Amino acid sequence: MSTSRFQPVSGFDLPRFAGVPTFMRLPHITLDDPDIADVQIGLVGAPWDGGTTNRPGPRHGPRQLRDLSTMIRAQNGATGVRPFDAANCADLGDVAPNPADVMDSLDRFTTFYSRVRQAGVRTLTAGGDHLCSLPILRGLASDGPVGMIHFDSHTDLFHSYFNGSMYTHGTPFRRAVEEELLDPQRVVQIGIRGTAYDMEDRDFAKSVGVRVIAIEEFFERGIPDVMAEAREIAGSGPTYISYDIDFVDPAFAPGTGTPEVGGPNSFQALQVVRELEGVNIIGADLVEVSPPFDQAGGTAWLAVSIMFELLCVMVGRH
Amino acid sequence: MSTSRFQPVSGFDLPRFAGVPTFMRLPHITLDDPDIADVQIGLVGAPWDGGTTNRPGPRHGPRQLRDLSTMIRAQNGATGVRPFDAANCADLGDVAPNPADVMDSLDRFTTFYSRVRQAGVRTLTAGGDHLCSLPILRGLASDGPVGMIHFDSHTDLFHSYFNGSMYTHGTPFRRAVEEELLDPQRVVQIGIRGTAYDMEDRDFAKSVGVRVIAIEEFFERGIPDVMAEAREIAGSGPTYISYDIDFVDPAFAPGTGTPEVGGPNSFQALQVVRELEGVNIIGADLVEVSPPFDQAGGTAWLAVSIMFELLCVMVGRH
Amino acid sequence: MSTSRFQPVSGFDLPRFAGVPTFMRLPHITLDDPDIADVQIGLVGAPWDGGTTNRPGPRHGPRQLRDLSTMIRAQNGATGVRPFDAANCADLGDVAPNPADVMDSLDRFTTFYSRVRQAGVRTLTAGGDHLCSLPILRGLASDGPVGMIHFDSHTDLFHSYFNGSMYTHGTPFRRAVEEELLDPQRVVQIGIRGTAYDMEDRDFAKSVGVRVIAIEEFFERGIPDVMAEAREIAGSGPTYISYDIDFVDPAFAPGTGTPEVGGPNSFQALQVVRELEGVNIIGADLVEVSPPFDQAGGTAWLAVSIMFELLCVMVGRH
Amino acid sequence: MSTSRFQPVSGFDLPRFAGVPTFMRLPHITLDDPDIADVQIGLVGAPWDGGTTNRPGPRHGPRQLRDLSTMIRAQNGATGVRPFDAANCADLGDVAPNPADVMDSLDRFTTFYSRVRQAGVRTLTAGGDHLCSLPILRGLASDGPVGMIHFDSHTDLFHSYFNGSMYTHGTPFRRAVEEELLDPQRVVQIGIRGTAYDMEDRDFAKSVGVRVIAIEEFFERGIPDVMAEAREIAGSGPTYISYDIDFVDPAFAPGTGTPEVGGPNSFQALQVVRELEGVNIIGADLVEVSPPFDQAGGTAWLAVSIMFELLCVMVGRH
Amino acid sequence: MSTSRFQPVSGFDLPRFAGVPTFMRLPHITLDDPDIADVQIGLVGAPWDGGTTNRPGPRHGPRQLRDLSTMIRAQNGATGVRPFDAANCADLGDVAPNPADVMDSLDRFTTFYSRVRQAGVRTLTAGGDHLCSLPILRGLASDGPVGMIHFDSHTDLFHSYFNGSMYTHGTPFRRAVEEELLDPQRVVQIGIRGTAYDMEDRDFAKSVGVRVIAIEEFFERGIPDVMAEAREIAGSGPTYISYDIDFVDPAFAPGTGTPEVGGPNSFQALQVVRELEGVNIIGADLVEVSPPFDQAGGTAWLAVSIMFELLCVMVGRH
Amino acid sequence: MSTSRFQPVSGFDLPRFAGVPTFMRLPHITLDDPDIADVQIGLVGAPWDGGTTNRPGPRHGPRQLRDLSTMIRAQNGATGVRPFDAANCADLGDVAPNPADVMDSLDRFTTFYSRVRQAGVRTLTAGGDHLCSLPILRGLASDGPVGMIHFDSHTDLFHSYFNGSMYTHGTPFRRAVEEELLDPQRVVQIGIRGTAYDMEDRDFAKSVGVRVIAIEEFFERGIPDVMAEAREIAGSGPTYISYDIDFVDPAFAPGTGTPEVGGPNSFQALQVVRELEGVNIIGADLVEVSPPFDQAGGTAWLAVSIMFELLCVMVGRH
Repeated sequence: MSTSRFQPVSGFDLPRFAGVPTFMRLPHITLDDPDIADVQIGLVGAPWDGGTTNRPGPRHGPRQLRDLSTMIRAQNGATGVRPFDAANCADLGDVAPNPADVMDSLDRFTTFYSRVRQAGVRTLTAGGDHLCSLPILRGLASDGPVGMIHFDSHTDLFHSYFNGSMYTHGTPFRRAVEEELLDPQRVVQIGIRGTAYDMEDRDFAKSVGVRVIAIEEFFERGIPDVMAEAREIAGSGPTYISYDIDFVDPAFAPGTGTPEVGGPNSFQALQVVRELEGVNIIGADLVEVSPPFDQAGGTAWLAVSIMFELLCVMVGRH
Repeated sequence: MSTSRFQPVSGFDLPRFAGVPTFMRLPHITLDDPDIADVQIGLVGAPWDGGTTNRPGPRHGPRQLRDLSTMIRAQNGATGVRPFDAANCADLGDVAPNPADVMDSLDRFTTFYSRVRQAGVRTLTAGGDHLCSLPILRGLASDGPVGMIHFDSHTDLFHSYFNGSMYTHGTPFRRAVEEELLDPQRVVQIGIRGTAYDMEDRDFAKSVGVRVIAIEEFFERGIPDVMAEAREIAGSGPTYISYDIDFVDPAFAPGTGTPEVGGPNSFQALQVVRELEGVNIIGADLVEVSPPFDQAGGTAWLAVSIMFELLCVMVGRH
Repeated sequence: MSTSRFQPVSGFDLPRFAGVPTFMRLPHITLDDPDIADVQIGLVGAPWDGGTTNRPGPRHGPRQLRDLSTMIRAQNGATGVRPFDAANCADLGDVAPNPADVMDSLDRFTTFYSRVRQAGVRTLTAGGDHLCSLPILRGLASDGPVGMIHFDSHTDLFHSYFNGSMYTHGTPFRRAVEEELLDPQRVVQIGIRGTAYDMEDRDFAKSVGVRVIAIEEFFERGIPDVMAEAREIAGSGPTYISYDIDFVDPAFAPGTGTPEVGGPNSFQALQVVRELEGVNIIGADLVEVSPPFDQAGGTAWLAVSIMFELLCVMVGRH
Repeated sequence: MSTSRFQPVSGFDLPRFAGVPTFMRLPHITLDDPDIADVQIGLVGAPWDGGTTNRPGPRHGPRQLRDLSTMIRAQNGATGVRPFDAANCADLGDVAPNPADVMDSLDRFTTFYSRVRQAGVRTLTAGGDHLCSLPILRGLASDGPVGMIHFDSHTDLFHSYFNGSMYTHGTPFRRAVEEELLDPQRVVQIGIRGTAYDMEDRDFAKSVGVRVIAIEEFFERGIPDVMAEAREIAGSGPTYISYDIDFVDPAFAPGTGTPEVGGPNSFQALQVVRELEGVNIIGADLVEVSPPFDQAGGTAWLAVSIMFELLCVMVGRH
Repeated sequence: MSTSRFQPVSGFDLPRFAGVPTFMRLPHITLDDPDIADVQIGLVGAPWDGGTTNRPGPRHGPRQLRDLSTMIRAQNGATGVRPFDAANCADLGDVAPNPADVMDSLDRFTTFYSRVRQAGVRTLTAGGDHLCSLPILRGLASDGPVGMIHFDSHTDLFHSYFNGSMYTHGTPFRRAVEEELLDPQRVVQIGIRGTAYDMEDRDFAKSVGVRVIAIEEFFERGIPDVMAEAREIAGSGPTYISYDIDFVDPAFAPGTGTPEVGGPNSFQALQVVRELEGVNIIGADLVEVSPPFDQAGGTAWLAVSIMFELLCVMVGRH
Repeated sequence: MSTSRFQPVSGFDLPRFAGVPTFMRLPHITLDDPDIADVQIGLVGAPWDGGTTNRPGPRHGPRQLRDLSTMIRAQNGATGVRPFDAANCADLGDVAPNPADVMDSLDRFTTFYSRVRQAGVRTLTAGGDHLCSLPILRGLASDGPVGMIHFDSHTDLFHSYFNGSMYTHGTPFRRAVEEELLDPQRVVQIGIRGTAYDMEDRDFAKSVGVRVIAIEEFFERGIPDVMAEAREIAGSGPTYISYDIDFVDPAFAPGTGTPEVGGPNSFQALQVVRELEGVNIIGADLVEVSPPFDQAGGTAWLAVSIMFELLCVMVGRH
């Protein structure tokens, strides 16, 4: 049960457009704050896009996601879960990136997430581009490889870009498998689609045992069946959830750098998360929201709705 | 049958981007005009947002809806209905609100709709925020409570906001039940979803007999089944139709103040109206279109398409 | 098999946001270039909107489509086809329209497509408004009427506009049937919807044997069934594919001049093209993208994704 | 003096965002209305862009200008003039163009303005692209050539475009001089700037005696001096005022098809009109507002502010 | 001198796009926080627009102003002032409005500013619509009427709107004079322009001795001369500064509800504030920023730049 | 004199919205093309923003600048210069950056510009963020330090960011002085303004002899006087021109990452370039255009107008 310190501000007291915007109107508690000891789930911003190979912007994601997240209320309309009653949640602020140095940023992020883990806080991270999942996994998976359920239109399993660059938002999970942060047999990637240069990423997936569920299979089998398989792949071990907003069709989520048409709608975008009920979630992220390509804020509104669903399954069994 | 005076301007004569924009290019006939006696259905603008608790803008709705409504032609592509042949329709202009005084606005609206009712004109209102349904019902339901089929993502059945404010766009139907304008046993709310602070509105619905069909049930059962139940609940008595544009998923209707993701698509948005065929409709509204959040006009275009469908079922049996 | 000269620039070499934008990063080879002899499929821009009766803008389509097309990679994620390996493809540049003279533009286009046909190049054209299909057919169908599979929300079979104008984007296929460029018995129109002034176009379709599949039938029967019928109607003879972007629901493709709500989503928009496998395609177009109504570029991104699918089926059996 | 019938609706009675939008909230009186006999100044929309050689959109101008014009009040803040007290003003509606036929549109416009002139109404026209000035002059100048004070960044004196097209928005005043609608010795063009292909237009101006004041001279001499010369050139004879919104710098008026940077600011844009006091104005236009390039409406707001200033000098001495 | 607690976060430590956005990256200290005792200048958000008679949106102002204010650094480039060194500054958060009740909001604001005054904190308020200046003055001017230097395109001295509504953003200073919060002889209004319904506000100004400097006089005399007069009018007594963003030309500040063209540019917008050096400033506001009409954020960026200049003159002599 | 091969496409032949967009519609000739030998001035795109510390986007600059540059015609309206007649100009394409590696990108750029210099081509570069000026200078200044006239609101003379990153868009000219690419005594920076963290950059400028002209001095002295001093500082030696679009006021150029309000207008933005006549220009750049913050394209239009003026002075004396 949460304590009153950790209740979000109600829109009946202060209208939702008012006030300094923290994630879901939760208290802002940094890692240096003594109250961090009481936090069970921390919402973290990862404002970077140093790994972006195409259209930049995710560095602005956390700011816009905080803004739109003040529209979130206290209770899940579909499942009835009240996450802020079930766990002490807080906004831990943003990890400080170095916009001019990718490798330095990776180190800063790894350090931050190691500290968070030591503090006993599970995190729900708002990206940032998808490369941020790598240092998060480095911070979280120090006891051995973890499983992952990954929603995306891309596998992010490529070897390198631009004649040898190994750290981009197209490579984090290749690195994570290589660094034994992920157990590839316990990894499933859902929603993959779009054009490709070749089959390099799919071949790698096959060779290490990562399960790839393309969008055609996703639509044909339906969400309950696909997600049952996903839960089975993840099993009961510690599992990370990574949700790239470009999993969703760009009509519902235009604000991202590498959209692929032909994806799920917003109802399906929420449903897949609700089907995570029962998974042993050690952390989660929602990445690749790019505000410059979404001035109306619709992508961010969907993204924070997904974050709220993630929070509800994270507290579900605890 | 309509008279030639009430035929809309054809796009073959005057291109659809030209001319002073009235609703669906109908003649503009005010309540003071003697021709009002010939009008059977009046399209009315309700340009206000004094009841809005979050993001404002619906006061600009009627202007934008008139603009986009000039894209509407004469015949329904799906049902073949030609509403302007079936009934004398006219644009009655806008009710004058008082943007600085909610209570005065309520009075002005009640007065207007009472006059309209005395003139024997049924109305299709373009909001404006959802609070406008309350004075419309006050004007229309003077002979006793009416039924209602209500499309929305919110119940609008809350008691009060901000420490006691009882007249907001979240409370109109609570007031309408209390004031015995609505017969709660003949009210159905369809599409409800999103986060909530608590269950106060749902508890009230249960206690008075309002039927709430959440979005999950809506998608599971399908439109024909849900709408059959809706028609049964409304029965053969006088029934009001209230359509909040946030019923529709925000990818299809971003231009609204309190969108909730995970809603119906635009085809479903039209289908539910076609399923109203046979209902005894005494009036209807389409509310909460907020142009500042929809500069491209897509929301307004969908909204006027829905208004045209509403018009087609309003004339259907007459 | 293609030659190396015709391979598009890879995003691993030059990032996709860089470089002079040609269609799909292919070489730019004009009709006057001797290399035209090696080209099998030519991508052509038709930057005009002189036939537009309502909201203009498609003259800017080819520019924006080239821009977004640099996001396309080499291989189809769903079917595995690699069109640039299968055929020598090139960007032939734009046909020069006369923005101040519709009839002159028609002549210029007819001349261009006659030359292209003589050069033995099949074309995939990026419009431009839908009137451009008429001079394309004049250029291509010189040996006798062809069949057509046509995706659209409108039939474009009207007789004339504005008191006698016979060449607008609402009339190309009426003219094409009259001029015996199209064999009406081998023409199918899919996705038709929206309001109408009357039944003139439908009556004409019936009278000459054009098959019209309205959107309600499309959704009810499903894509495989509808497309099987379409392939049967087209038969094995030479067939033109005309794809108006307003076939797709405006939430997915807002950037067009005459959108009609209630259409297919982006996955369905791609699926119908994949079901063209086996059709004897002599040319294709994707028309009515209007950048001024789509500043975020989502419509163009969907449109070039559809163009890539069209390319994949055009090379499919060759 | 005006009669009460011709007073615009006050924003104190009906808020400025409400109501069916006519120009400056004036009564809508068509040429067929018997009340036309009482009208002294008519505001007319010319919704076309058939003469546009580059980026289209002005066909949507009158709609947006009517919308923004509801922000105009009754009295000029700088000069104290109250135009609606001084003359009976009305919205005459739009001239019906033929979007598919430039020559037919020219004829329709000439006919309309001839009728207006016969009705004894002076007009203030809201374009539409600049070609509309030609048929207006044909309608107005039937008694012989008139003078003109012309604000623009282009001379619009070119001979032809695209290998012989003589009727575009770059040629109206060449034609008007050739047709002896304008007396070139009484014509002055102010604000000319931007790149050119050659000196053809300037050479023509010199050869017939049109005075061209480039922007550098405009800024160097200052508005009072330049406008004194303009008044002297126009003299006391009948004079037409043509105001292309691209006269103004595009930071102040982005919504136009062929902007040229380095122009006057909005204060100067108003000042030049105030300096027309005393000119014998027989008609005026404000053209080239293109809403698709100005979704925020700032250009239209400036344009209607200029139209109000034009109205104030049109009634000034009458 | 400030203490280290009150130094804003540097962009060299945490990039300016990162972190929870408080005003100018200052610490967030509420009135209930014991540290309030150390605060000398408080930045306050007043998120309301209940007094808005035309286009709403300023309720979203403080959120966007906080966002853009993270671009502000520590030192004034023109004057060299370092306000955060000179005084302890903090973000006091937002006053909670009641969006559904203007009178209740006025009371809430008055209470808040009374408490602030008792705490010995001078405030710089970010609106919100201009009606907020009234309760601020009620809170601040409890010892007797104060002077005011007021930058605006409107006088906001009207008696009432909509048949008797006395509390709108067009009336605050009429009320403030009537309530003896302002000493009209020590009030100057600068930049007034635009159309009007009549002279009621100007007549009132004259009758009580308020000095109105219209924009024509402003431009003719120049800033140093005008501001010297303004300082003389304000004298050495306690003076409030009220800055409506619509003082600035809408090309520089489009994001506001009632823009008037023909105003100062952004350099002049800053210069007038620098000329306040030496005035005895007891509080200041920057109001009427409306984010829905300024999605690009340029208005907010100018507004926070003005707020920074205001802060620099507020600390100037202390 | 140029040869016909190097004449841009005329808008009278192919409308300006048509065709594959190269810079100013010039032929596209890469360094590997034998025709490079005939090129005198090369327009180059530098699509990167790896040095950006705040809001990204300039990597998209060259694409948008090419698009808008098709609006440029052949002759300068103010000076009469016809640059494409005076010199053989061509579009050399884009330098390939590595978006994931700043140091690798710097090397790629240096290599490219060294090759260009060896080919005897002077370049006009379209950025890209301002860090690109460093490798350009490395390529060009191999014979010893050069002078520079620099238009900007920032000095870009900082030592490092984020705890030691020495290569950002805030440091290029510090590095260039340290690497003896620039002769600081022959460097002048014009238009500097905005807030700062401290005086580190100004102190450095003073210590090495770089002349900084702040915006206040710029406005007070006027352009002719300031530019005469600039020409004197540059002297007759080889001089580089660097033009950051944020030199211009953000109302005229919103599309940039670090705008500072209170800058020159667009007329002044062009005038300063015209005053470069006579300077010995060895190369020039126009940087920091960020399309995601300028969807309407106004910034790019101003930027290409400035590029055209730069081209006119580059060919001026040759």
